[in-house]
Amino acid sequence: MVTHPHLLAAVDLGSNSFRLIVGRVEETPAGSQIYQVDALREPVRLGGGLSKDKMLDRASQVRGWDALKRFGERLRDFHPDQVRAVATNTLRVAKNAHDFLSEAEAALGFPIEVIAGREEARLIYAGAAHSVPASAGKRLVVDIGGGSTEFIIGSHYTPIHMESLYIGCVSHSRQFFPAGNVDEYTMRQAELAAKREIQIISSEYKGTGWDQAIGSSGTARALAELIEANGFNDEGITHGISRGGLEKLKRALIKAENVNRLKLIALKPDRVPVLAGGLSIMLGVFEELGIEYADTTDAALRLGVLYDLLGRSQHQDMRTVTVEGFKRRYGVDAAQAERIGELAISFYDQLGEPDEDLREENRMFLAWAASLHEIGLSIAHSAYHKHSAYIASNADMPGFSRTDQARLAALVLGHAGKLGKLAQARDIEWTLLFCLRLAALLSRRRADVGLPGIEVKRAGAGFEVHLPNEWVANNPLTDYSLVQEAMEWEKIGRPYRVVYTGD
Amino acid sequence: MVTHPHLLAAVDLGSNSFRLIVGRVEETPAGSQIYQVDALREPVRLGGGLSKDKMLDRASQVRGWDALKRFGERLRDFHPDQVRAVATNTLRVAKNAHDFLSEAEAALGFPIEVIAGREEARLIYAGAAHSVPASAGKRLVVDIGGGSTEFIIGSHYTPIHMESLYIGCVSHSRQFFPAGNVDEYTMRQAELAAKREIQIISSEYKGTGWDQAIGSSGTARALAELIEANGFNDEGITHGISRGGLEKLKRALIKAENVNRLKLIALKPDRVPVLAGGLSIMLGVFEELGIEYADTTDAALRLGVLYDLLGRSQHQDMRTVTVEGFKRRYGVDAAQAERIGELAISFYDQLGEPDEDLREENRMFLAWAASLHEIGLSIAHSAYHKHSAYIASNADMPGFSRTDQARLAALVLGHAGKLGKLAQARDIEWTLLFCLRLAALLSRRRADVGLPGIEVKRAGAGFEVHLPNEWVANNPLTDYSLVQEAMEWEKIGRPYRVVYTGD
Repeated sequence: MVTHPHLLAAVDLGSNSFRLIVGRVEETPAGSQIYQVDALREPVRLGGGLSKDKMLDRASQVRGWDALKRFGERLRDFHPDQVRAVATNTLRVAKNAHDFLSEAEAALGFPIEVIAGREEARLIYAGAAHSVPASAGKRLVVDIGGGSTEFIIGSHYTPIHMESLYIGCVSHSRQFFPAGNVDEYTMRQAELAAKREIQIISSEYKGTGWDQAIGSSGTARALAELIEANGFNDEGITHGISRGGLEKLKRALIKAENVNRLKLIALKPDRVPVLAGGLSIMLGVFEELGIEYADTTDAALRLGVLYDLLGRSQHQDMRTVTVEGFKRRYGVDAAQAERIGELAISFYDQLGEPDEDLREENRMFLAWAASLHEIGLSIAHSAYHKHSAYIASNADMPGFSRTDQARLAALVLGHAGKLGKLAQARDIEWTLLFCLRLAALLSRRRADVGLPGIEVKRAGAGFEVHLPNEWVANNPLTDYSLVQEAMEWEKIGRPYRVVYTGD
Repeated sequence: MVTHPHLLAAVDLGSNSFRLIVGRVEETPAGSQIYQVDALREPVRLGGGLSKDKMLDRASQVRGWDALKRFGERLRDFHPDQVRAVATNTLRVAKNAHDFLSEAEAALGFPIEVIAGREEARLIYAGAAHSVPASAGKRLVVDIGGGSTEFIIGSHYTPIHMESLYIGCVSHSRQFFPAGNVDEYTMRQAELAAKREIQIISSEYKGTGWDQAIGSSGTARALAELIEANGFNDEGITHGISRGGLEKLKRALIKAENVNRLKLIALKPDRVPVLAGGLSIMLGVFEELGIEYADTTDAALRLGVLYDLLGRSQHQDMRTVTVEGFKRRYGVDAAQAERIGELAISFYDQLGEPDEDLREENRMFLAWAASLHEIGLSIAHSAYHKHSAYIASNADMPGFSRTDQARLAALVLGHAGKLGKLAQARDIEWTLLFCLRLAALLSRRRADVGLPGIEVKRAGAGFEVHLPNEWVANNPLTDYSLVQEAMEWEKIGRPYRVVYTGD
């Protein structure tokens, strides 16, 4: 028997689908992280097999057992310490859950725990807290499952409120849209039913408040993908779910009259039967809790199970742990990263930013961009800044949102090379790019060269760099590179003046 | 003073440009390799400053010293053991080379060797042999420089013939196209002049013969880029230089009447002054030596200098060394790679391939693809096969041609996931994909699971997989995955039959 002590697996017997993820534990000096290495998903729709008198029908049980047998083959070499299988709402409520579970455990080869709603909420929060950006404030996590929806408010890695309510996309779709027909009236009734449930907790939750809302389930992911791919979000929002985006999706659904006639980009066939129910609950959540925008994250419950198995609580900002891990993984020259980061931040501080929060955030992004700007060298020297940006865009980066990753990718892409193509994109952070590019230019020797005092200033849409004449004369590559750099900025219509001081 | 014992630098004072590359030594159990980590290029055009009486003019010397001062800043922390600077034809022939060199060495901070044509040829061959695919047969390497052209025939890492002739793109451009004007007659005269020089060696070289021709200089790279980007190559050739491609480029040049009026994609301003001379020499080389097609490689001289500095001769197939290095760099599960590789090759052998050379090559590609198919996991699990393909397409992979890299990228992209989109591309290697996909499917548990005897056969445009009923019944994930796999192949119109044997 082969064991994989560095691998952990989580099985999630949800009301909509059964899922397995296998995670690899990556140790870094800053802490431990889990990266997904394999995943299986079976659209069992167990909740759909639950009769009015709460009995699971034979067909859905067979689908469940078949799925678990397949998972069992994948997990055959795992030790019980490496695996945790949890079942949620449908198996909490099914009267014949016990019969289903004994055969299910035999099929999977591991014990299965039916977890309470609050335990589910705790695990979801743990998973979400390890995958979304650390924020100073409070987070609301909403996880719309097949048969229940969990609501958690927490701060850092600690939950404050945890609740599980009996609304879910499978049960709601069955109740309000049994044949898939959707009209204005029925959709409104479904929203109101969701709101009625949420009212149980809304005043307490709103009393505590939150700074960031996160949708963490497959329903949230699927809604976000539909809204993003079809351009339904409000102007300027590229990722996540805005209230306007939900409304446009609802209009499209009502216009199609039946979910099965809906034609949208990125609509996956197995989400179709639960789309109307899931959408109506999300609309109810937004309206009742007064949410305008929610980020999304995937696999929160399963990731929470894995971190729980790992059994180590994390007190670090997960983004720092991720960046440290990436520096090791991609063989980054750490001294060079630190050199460029410190120099870039010192320029940024000279330029001045009155808003303290923004200043702190930008300083962090400069340090991260400096840490990651050379990760693309792991692919090739030629066009390495593009490879760095490819990795920053596509990598699994716990703690960073996709918006954060897009920002980082833009910074590492722009830290060297021509500015012309960049200038065509929106929202270029010219000030941060200026600081990063100048720091990189001055550090090309990858050594602590004893730089002179260098003064930087804003000048209209551009910048000024003051440095001692004598030093420049002794460093002809730097001098030449500064002239080239000034030409790059002038080409995009931003003045860049190099001022030589002294005699 | 900081030293970088794992870094090496080569400086090349060519007749057209001065160049610096910094390489990092990567040790693998299979051997040592050098990966470029920094590069500087200065279009000094020293050869253009050579007067009729072989004196370098002041302006070109100053351009050279300025360039070397900038290189010197980059190399300031390097120990002399880590650096080798070589000067080629212009400094071989210039009567005032000595004066130039004493100031040049002061500017660079390191000694500069003027190397003989045969030493240049030896280094070029060493560089090319470390960067192009190992081939069983003989290689002809042609390096058109600014003032001389080197011709080497070799086998593996050993040169057989080495010659350096006095034709170069700078001198030829000055002689035949002084104002950039190009017409049919002048172009023909320039070709004939090149041919006359090459005739000195052509009968000996043709007597020895070669299996593969390679253009190794900046001129070859620039010609290949122009020909590729403008679609000038003969049908079916995506990379490198074909005779037809050279002819079309010549027609475009003659039609433009002057190099400065030539409008082509990928034409770089600093290649313009030497384009006509370089093209006419390449045409002469192709015609005189009877070449129809040449691969290209870059930086051969500089790379040869670095490998020479490293001082270890390589007797391995550089591709094996590269793949071993990549497995370590990207943290590949080596047992899994080997498992899938061996299984895929066993299927391939069952299918039968009568051509022995093709069979051996395909077996190697299957083993490499199995070694590299998971490198994208270093970026993310989600869509990792796409990340693997991105790395295989873009990475610096010594020993592999760009065509090889494109083949590998297509195999790792297609080893999992949907076949629909792939099927739209040309030249899909369906047989190799079948073997690789089946091997990966059967190895999902990443353990030596004791597979039963599995028989594979061709069936029209598709395949048959025979495996024992009893084993399948005990491995439900594999069974299910085979059914899904069969559906994928049916979707693209290729039959895929799973046959259960026994009772």
